[in-house]
Amino acid sequence: MAKDMTLLWGSGSPPCWRVMVVLEEKNLQGYNQKLLAFEKMEHKSQQVMDMNPRGQLPAFKHGNSVLNESYAACIYLESQFKSQGNKLIPDCPAEQALMYQRMFEGNTLAQKMADVIYYDWKVPEGERHDSAVKRNREALSAEVKLWEGYLQKVSGPFLAGKNFSLADVSVYPTIAYVFRYGLSEERYPKLAAYYNSLKERPSIKVSWPPTWLEKPQGEDTLKDL
Amino acid sequence: MAKDMTLLWGSGSPPCWRVMVVLEEKNLQGYNQKLLAFEKMEHKSQQVMDMNPRGQLPAFKHGNSVLNESYAACIYLESQFKSQGNKLIPDCPAEQALMYQRMFEGNTLAQKMADVIYYDWKVPEGERHDSAVKRNREALSAEVKLWEGYLQKVSGPFLAGKNFSLADVSVYPTIAYVFRYGLSEERYPKLAAYYNSLKERPSIKVSWPPTWLEKPQGEDTLKDL
Repeated sequence: MAKDMTLLWGSGSPPCWRVMVVLEEKNLQGYNQKLLAFEKMEHKSQQVMDMNPRGQLPAFKHGNSVLNESYAACIYLESQFKSQGNKLIPDCPAEQALMYQRMFEGNTLAQKMADVIYYDWKVPEGERHDSAVKRNREALSAEVKLWEGYLQKVSGPFLAGKNFSLADVSVYPTIAYVFRYGLSEERYPKLAAYYNSLKERPSIKVSWPPTWLEKPQGEDTLKDL
Repeated sequence: MAKDMTLLWGSGSPPCWRVMVVLEEKNLQGYNQKLLAFEKMEHKSQQVMDMNPRGQLPAFKHGNSVLNESYAACIYLESQFKSQGNKLIPDCPAEQALMYQRMFEGNTLAQKMADVIYYDWKVPEGERHDSAVKRNREALSAEVKLWEGYLQKVSGPFLAGKNFSLADVSVYPTIAYVFRYGLSEERYPKLAAYYNSLKERPSIKVSWPPTWLEKPQGEDTLKDL
């Protein structure tokens, strides 16, 4: 199978999760993999640094090619294994355009989520401000509403329409994250329906973060968003 | 030509510049375009908001398809006009992997540059800290050194090797920006050589930011980096 591939990953990391979903969708099971613990700083270990000088996960290799950026790995794998497993880039130009647009907008959602969820981790104690926390939450709230609107308008169950695509691969982990952190399913019904409907998709189910399975109860950081 | 395309853009914005370079490389001249002024807040005008609800530039349309995310527009245009103009995604799997990896790493470079250059613009006065400024500059310095190293090692004049590709399209505007903001050509000789060698490439020359042509002298924010 995929014995010439190696993935070093961390549980719950959206970038790692994206790569795992694509590997499943493309029937590339059987790759070498190692689950590392962020809390033990294993992402700064020599094994990771040798593959990824930024000391981040995922660290991913196909043969001698290193693809640590999750978007890079996803597009590359779809391109190299086009006719294997599920097709993840639609042929229809309009659907393809929407797919790329949503895929890359997903970076903004992920960034705004991180600004809220990881605020205390990213900002040293003496530099924290309630005004910044408030602004970040407002920005995330506007962003999440934008995505709720996208799902109201799209003609199909997926982000780019009728087909599961790289847009879903890229954005689903972030959507799962905001619900893990307490986003209200009542206030965001379309996002909640999307989130719940894809939970059982085999590629997503099999790659569900093991730390979330061990501790099913999430946080409530976003419950009032 | 490209009469079914519309680009709303701002001078000097790396995302806008990327899309303009791709349009040139793919021989898609003749598109409808409008230069808007960030300083007059024209990126928040109704015309932009109708295409891009985040009120950001570029706002780009092909037919009815909206592609405001520059990476989305670049990959989409290359995919839709594969055999027209210059090929921007190499076929060789190893070169393609390197291209995607560098392309998406370019986001990190752009982000770390923005954290330094736009600090006062992004962070309200009461929330600014010298410690954050210092940390951001150190992070950018480490990042720029990483790219200097990449160019030392690559076998060819471009970021992914022998061919000009989407990696160059994506990252060149940021490299031009750091030099515009005073990065030392002496301390980063490989980056400087890359920057200077591509200045005369037709797609880059024709899309060079008009505000930079009007005022050739840049800033010195990064001169000690």
